[in-house]
Amino acid sequence: MKRIGFLTSGGDCQSLNATMRGVAKTLYEKIEDVEIIGVLDGYKGLIYGNYKKLNPRDFSGILTEGGTIIGTSRQPFKLMREPDENGMDKVKAMKNNYAKWKLDCLVILGGNGTHKTANLLSEEGLNVVTCPKTIDNDLYGTDMTFGFQSAVNIATAAIDNIHTTASSHSRVFIVEVMGHSVGWLTLHAGIAGGADIVLIPEIPYDIDKVVDAINKRTEQGKKFSILAVAEGALSKEDVKLSKKDIKKKMKMYPSVSYMIGAEIEEKTGQEIRIMVPGHTQRGGIPCPYDRVISSRLGAAAAELIIKEKYGYMVGIRNNEIVPVPLSEVAGKIKAVNPDSSIIREAKNLGICFGD
Amino acid sequence: MKRIGFLTSGGDCQSLNATMRGVAKTLYEKIEDVEIIGVLDGYKGLIYGNYKKLNPRDFSGILTEGGTIIGTSRQPFKLMREPDENGMDKVKAMKNNYAKWKLDCLVILGGNGTHKTANLLSEEGLNVVTCPKTIDNDLYGTDMTFGFQSAVNIATAAIDNIHTTASSHSRVFIVEVMGHSVGWLTLHAGIAGGADIVLIPEIPYDIDKVVDAINKRTEQGKKFSILAVAEGALSKEDVKLSKKDIKKKMKMYPSVSYMIGAEIEEKTGQEIRIMVPGHTQRGGIPCPYDRVISSRLGAAAAELIIKEKYGYMVGIRNNEIVPVPLSEVAGKIKAVNPDSSIIREAKNLGICFGD
Amino acid sequence: MKRIGFLTSGGDCQSLNATMRGVAKTLYEKIEDVEIIGVLDGYKGLIYGNYKKLNPRDFSGILTEGGTIIGTSRQPFKLMREPDENGMDKVKAMKNNYAKWKLDCLVILGGNGTHKTANLLSEEGLNVVTCPKTIDNDLYGTDMTFGFQSAVNIATAAIDNIHTTASSHSRVFIVEVMGHSVGWLTLHAGIAGGADIVLIPEIPYDIDKVVDAINKRTEQGKKFSILAVAEGALSKEDVKLSKKDIKKKMKMYPSVSYMIGAEIEEKTGQEIRIMVPGHTQRGGIPCPYDRVISSRLGAAAAELIIKEKYGYMVGIRNNEIVPVPLSEVAGKIKAVNPDSSIIREAKNLGICFGD
Amino acid sequence: MKRIGFLTSGGDCQSLNATMRGVAKTLYEKIEDVEIIGVLDGYKGLIYGNYKKLNPRDFSGILTEGGTIIGTSRQPFKLMREPDENGMDKVKAMKNNYAKWKLDCLVILGGNGTHKTANLLSEEGLNVVTCPKTIDNDLYGTDMTFGFQSAVNIATAAIDNIHTTASSHSRVFIVEVMGHSVGWLTLHAGIAGGADIVLIPEIPYDIDKVVDAINKRTEQGKKFSILAVAEGALSKEDVKLSKKDIKKKMKMYPSVSYMIGAEIEEKTGQEIRIMVPGHTQRGGIPCPYDRVISSRLGAAAAELIIKEKYGYMVGIRNNEIVPVPLSEVAGKIKAVNPDSSIIREAKNLGICFGD
Repeated sequence: MKRIGFLTSGGDCQSLNATMRGVAKTLYEKIEDVEIIGVLDGYKGLIYGNYKKLNPRDFSGILTEGGTIIGTSRQPFKLMREPDENGMDKVKAMKNNYAKWKLDCLVILGGNGTHKTANLLSEEGLNVVTCPKTIDNDLYGTDMTFGFQSAVNIATAAIDNIHTTASSHSRVFIVEVMGHSVGWLTLHAGIAGGADIVLIPEIPYDIDKVVDAINKRTEQGKKFSILAVAEGALSKEDVKLSKKDIKKKMKMYPSVSYMIGAEIEEKTGQEIRIMVPGHTQRGGIPCPYDRVISSRLGAAAAELIIKEKYGYMVGIRNNEIVPVPLSEVAGKIKAVNPDSSIIREAKNLGICFGD
Repeated sequence: MKRIGFLTSGGDCQSLNATMRGVAKTLYEKIEDVEIIGVLDGYKGLIYGNYKKLNPRDFSGILTEGGTIIGTSRQPFKLMREPDENGMDKVKAMKNNYAKWKLDCLVILGGNGTHKTANLLSEEGLNVVTCPKTIDNDLYGTDMTFGFQSAVNIATAAIDNIHTTASSHSRVFIVEVMGHSVGWLTLHAGIAGGADIVLIPEIPYDIDKVVDAINKRTEQGKKFSILAVAEGALSKEDVKLSKKDIKKKMKMYPSVSYMIGAEIEEKTGQEIRIMVPGHTQRGGIPCPYDRVISSRLGAAAAELIIKEKYGYMVGIRNNEIVPVPLSEVAGKIKAVNPDSSIIREAKNLGICFGD
Repeated sequence: MKRIGFLTSGGDCQSLNATMRGVAKTLYEKIEDVEIIGVLDGYKGLIYGNYKKLNPRDFSGILTEGGTIIGTSRQPFKLMREPDENGMDKVKAMKNNYAKWKLDCLVILGGNGTHKTANLLSEEGLNVVTCPKTIDNDLYGTDMTFGFQSAVNIATAAIDNIHTTASSHSRVFIVEVMGHSVGWLTLHAGIAGGADIVLIPEIPYDIDKVVDAINKRTEQGKKFSILAVAEGALSKEDVKLSKKDIKKKMKMYPSVSYMIGAEIEEKTGQEIRIMVPGHTQRGGIPCPYDRVISSRLGAAAAELIIKEKYGYMVGIRNNEIVPVPLSEVAGKIKAVNPDSSIIREAKNLGICFGD
Repeated sequence: MKRIGFLTSGGDCQSLNATMRGVAKTLYEKIEDVEIIGVLDGYKGLIYGNYKKLNPRDFSGILTEGGTIIGTSRQPFKLMREPDENGMDKVKAMKNNYAKWKLDCLVILGGNGTHKTANLLSEEGLNVVTCPKTIDNDLYGTDMTFGFQSAVNIATAAIDNIHTTASSHSRVFIVEVMGHSVGWLTLHAGIAGGADIVLIPEIPYDIDKVVDAINKRTEQGKKFSILAVAEGALSKEDVKLSKKDIKKKMKMYPSVSYMIGAEIEEKTGQEIRIMVPGHTQRGGIPCPYDRVISSRLGAAAAELIIKEKYGYMVGIRNNEIVPVPLSEVAGKIKAVNPDSSIIREAKNLGICFGD
């Protein structure tokens, strides 16, 4: 008999339920006697002792459902070692609940922050297996995270729709894509959507290069230009500023696209249109690609539990699911390498990165 | 033998090409000898004499293509009677080109502004037949315009995606839907997407009623609220202001949602997330509904040409295509009636309009 | 206090849940004290006394869900007055359960067969309100049924996908669309998908006319032809046969497309490809159009209940929701009129109906 | 100055145009003076000397277009060395046209058969670079082919739609997925769609195991079962038969699903419904995933041309684009390994493969 806890943490994304279904179906299939509980609203539920029992029926029909059936919340890692407002020791509380619930293992689905805490819990002696969730695809140790491809599809659809409009009106269109610290999502959506200019955090841009690229298109008789801009794109000047100064500078703009748009409008005299699909990129039905990797990751996570092999994230490397030690994952980030072949290929296609 | 000109004017939308294909296929099918020319970039092409010849092949494969193969531009009606920057009389120029090109009829696709000019040209003696194009569905004399349902689909998809995210995080989400003067698009997308609050220009809102609705949901244990807000939504106070004063007040916000969002955040203390799908609502592939009405409207417009029945818009009334005199259409607007049954039904469903 | 039963009957379709949600939300909003029960699996549940209680939570999140949360089954009307295998009187049983459950009204969602039984129950003294559900759009008394537009979208998508393939290979493609007795779905999908030939039950076809149309396209240098064929399409010869003889003739073909395809292959020498999307046309997420009319119909059905106005179907006429007496609906069918304007317009566009 | 020929061969798929655009944009970007010609309708055009000049404008807007702008045809490799009906030597003809057109390189997009001929041409001294196109994903030497993921999306959508219907009716549903010799597409769509039973050519099935799986579901109170069946699925008995005998046995069934369906109906007594999405799986808009790999593969193919590195296919290995010698690719097939981890994971999830 085994008792397993499920926990989803951080920003939600499209294939959380599909992944949990993968773990659950495999556990129910392979273990005679298994009980699954859902820890509610991320680490908050683990700290404050909130959970609900889950039955096979709860996992039926959720393969295609966005969101998470057990809720999620953001619990910054840096506060984990600090007491809460009532002076309670969070780590101790989590360990206590784990013990009280008689868990054999905790399956944690989350991104970078989540994995730091997961590693901490593992180091504190809890049995932990994790799954790589994020639309940002920035988790170290795995080629791909679930949620990413679904988000690419939504961001690309936004760019696609703009294309038909753009071809009739002479304007510059900016689609702002999610991604505060990495540009995977913007890069893939930009290539897939045929964006002319792609600005990502990993490649600080020179606004004059961007303006040149737009003007060159205009000279070639192309009526419009489309920019895919990551939320966290930064200019070569701004990258030197402190976080505080950036925040200050950004204060008058609702987001980075409005600042970039204002500059382009001023320097090119062209009309600017800004689209911010925002949280729509995290939502909706997971795409088949994500459902396949989620199902596989889930099944592989369950295999680790069955083998009592704890302290690992299941990751994807060369199309195979592999266990990656949590200590290798936690605290690192997988960013776009400006010298990588995908960037070279994108530049060959004529995409301007502003560098 | 007949020589027909096609002209698309105003903001683009999804089913312009499907409509032109409908006209063209019927003309080619029914008239022995027909020549079609495309007037380029809306009335601008008619004024300055820019056009291209179109062949049967040009209409092949465009049923599903967004945008317009002959370009479009906005040419405000109120400037039509004024000379251009070189002192040229625009109306005279349009009449001259019509005569020079030996047109038997001009087929004009457009919305409210476009129809004012089309009516003017008709009064000036040109043979004109028009088709009702607008994502706003605000043209008088027709139950439905093409482009509307495709735009509803895109705006609804945005709200759908938000739903899965919203159900995991405790927040207020605003989706800003296109519509400066009428709320049809916001209303339909709001109902279809299951929005909790719908704000449209025709029903000025009281921010306290909106806040009450959100708080009531919070009290009922519902974690999130979703607002569908038209670009032109106005509060009961703002509706009394002059256009100039509204513009001034709005200056510090990129759009109305940011202003409403700031007020709600202040009054409820809840986190706000804003999505602005913007021009994506005009773009992409026309939905089957639009393609059917576009094909039918196009075929019916061609029938009018064959019968030499000019001066009409083809409209949809009670699911039949009918000719509507241009003089009846021009200068009017079809707004949402706050006392109509669709509003009553929406309120019955529990949707708050802030009134 | 009111006690209302919900019942869905016949083949499922996309917007059943959205409609029930519309009824329920309005009832909960407008009546102080209301109880809703779901009769399980259509009339079967009413006959054999199976139901479950439904709560507000059951209607949350189902606006976008296909299928029906209370199950459905086909219960042919012609057997309703006959005793079941155990000699039980079905009508009496239904009346008994209605009384036993102390229902104030039964809300029935269904198509043609369902409405015959609903009318019977109404005549037997039960309070009944119905909603027009069918992907076939063949219900008398309403311009539109929910489910139809969602099915059009799926059938059209099939034709769309074929188009890109067809344009590279020299072949005849048949897409078989649902519709045993009426052709609305095939007609709309055919127009929307740009099919060259559309065969529907209401217009018996002459295979030679179909072959001529294909050959004409080949002569014009068009490499491919696409047929949208209704399941119940019949040739001018077959329409004279008895149902038994048709069945016999069809026996060697899995469906009508295979028979038509074989004839075309023989007579044109061209390769044939057949696509049968089948039940996929009933499934998946309801489109926004359906969700809007379902929500409106549901709200209007609830209004009838509140006013205690029983014995009606809520229908759509001229874009307004109106009550239609059940006696007017039951036993009739709304077929495509071969002389209607939509057929004339489709023919003007060059679509061949084989007549 | 360089002169490059493009050629697409075999069954069409979704991302052919995106790939050619990738090659072309890079060539135009990187080579001062480049001319591109499109060889028409596959190897047929190369044999009979049909081509058209392509300009930068031809590659604009085709990133999202299905099909191929230069046409395709199937030209079986085994006939390549044989003279045509007029006694012409095909290989010689192809070499002659290559020389006559003064080509520096021929870029060939195709699947298995195509690559055999491409390798032959390379061995005959032509400069050839190829791109891996097939919805089957069965090309040796690359982890992924373009077209595959788009086809997975369509096949999965079919299964998704069936799910909502299936959950209301007690039946067995079969979705027949493309794939005559390999099961990648069926396997991925089956996992993504949550199919209960997946039958692929690589794992011959035992019909009794399939029936057992269905009966087990029925006993568990599950009302329906969904099968994803590859076109080329074979039973353990049939796999022993000669191709001729299989053909004979299959003669009475339009496709394999009808044969399997008949057996299941007989053995379980349950109603069967069959869906054959067929060629819709090859069509429509390429998904963003395919557009990204197509763009990258295209850019990388152009890089090979620039470096004058001929005789290679560009393939994807471990997410990097790598050149693979044509001799390694030709004549091999990449089938699903029944002992691979993806099959093990799928079985862990409870999917029955009938073995």
